[in-house]
Amino acid sequence: MTDQLSTTLTALADPTRRAILARLGQGEATVMELAAPFDLKLPTVSKHLKVLQRAGLITQGRRAQWRPCRLEAAPLKEVSDWVDGYRHQWEERMDRLEGYLRELQSDPGVSRSKQDG
Amino acid sequence: MTDQLSTTLTALADPTRRAILARLGQGEATVMELAAPFDLKLPTVSKHLKVLQRAGLITQGRRAQWRPCRLEAAPLKEVSDWVDGYRHQWEERMDRLEGYLRELQSDPGVSRSKQDG
Repeated sequence: MTDQLSTTLTALADPTRRAILARLGQGEATVMELAAPFDLKLPTVSKHLKVLQRAGLITQGRRAQWRPCRLEAAPLKEVSDWVDGYRHQWEERMDRLEGYLRELQSDPGVSRSKQDG
Repeated sequence: MTDQLSTTLTALADPTRRAILARLGQGEATVMELAAPFDLKLPTVSKHLKVLQRAGLITQGRRAQWRPCRLEAAPLKEVSDWVDGYRHQWEERMDRLEGYLRELQSDPGVSRSKQDG
């Protein structure tokens, strides 16, 4: 049994599936409309849609002819909440880099002595 | 060739690897220290570490005996930036749900007429 977050991340770990989500972020679309910009065969698109559907990232309407797909953003909130727990880690790192750059600018000797050494 | 974001998401799509990152979020740790709480064999932990390392999510020190692992948060920022593009989607949805709940509370007839119909 796979946990929801792992299922979501697996579904997102493909550039075509992320592009499909980006398209659906602009509004509902049929499978044909989703397939067009990717130059993919319909069965390939259908496979990607199934992975997204199993992860709860999209739903598909029930009307047989159109069955438009729509984005469901709730699983993305879980990803956001998870990654947010690490925000201080990369912010701290950028602060350190910034501090080092400032040091370089105010005292060019820092970089020169590094290059010389 | 896989794009960086897909590599990162694949690496994150495993609960043990996320637990390893959570541990490293508290500070450096050796492979032995990482293996202990998971009741995993060392080769299994090593495999997970290799996936994390290839994704640039951890680095390992060079001193042969200890080789402590440390978290590298930069790829997580890319995940955060990507998922942030969908924030308005789930916030909108929660606003709609909230609006509906408020409607129910101010006019209980809404839910009753739904149940009756």
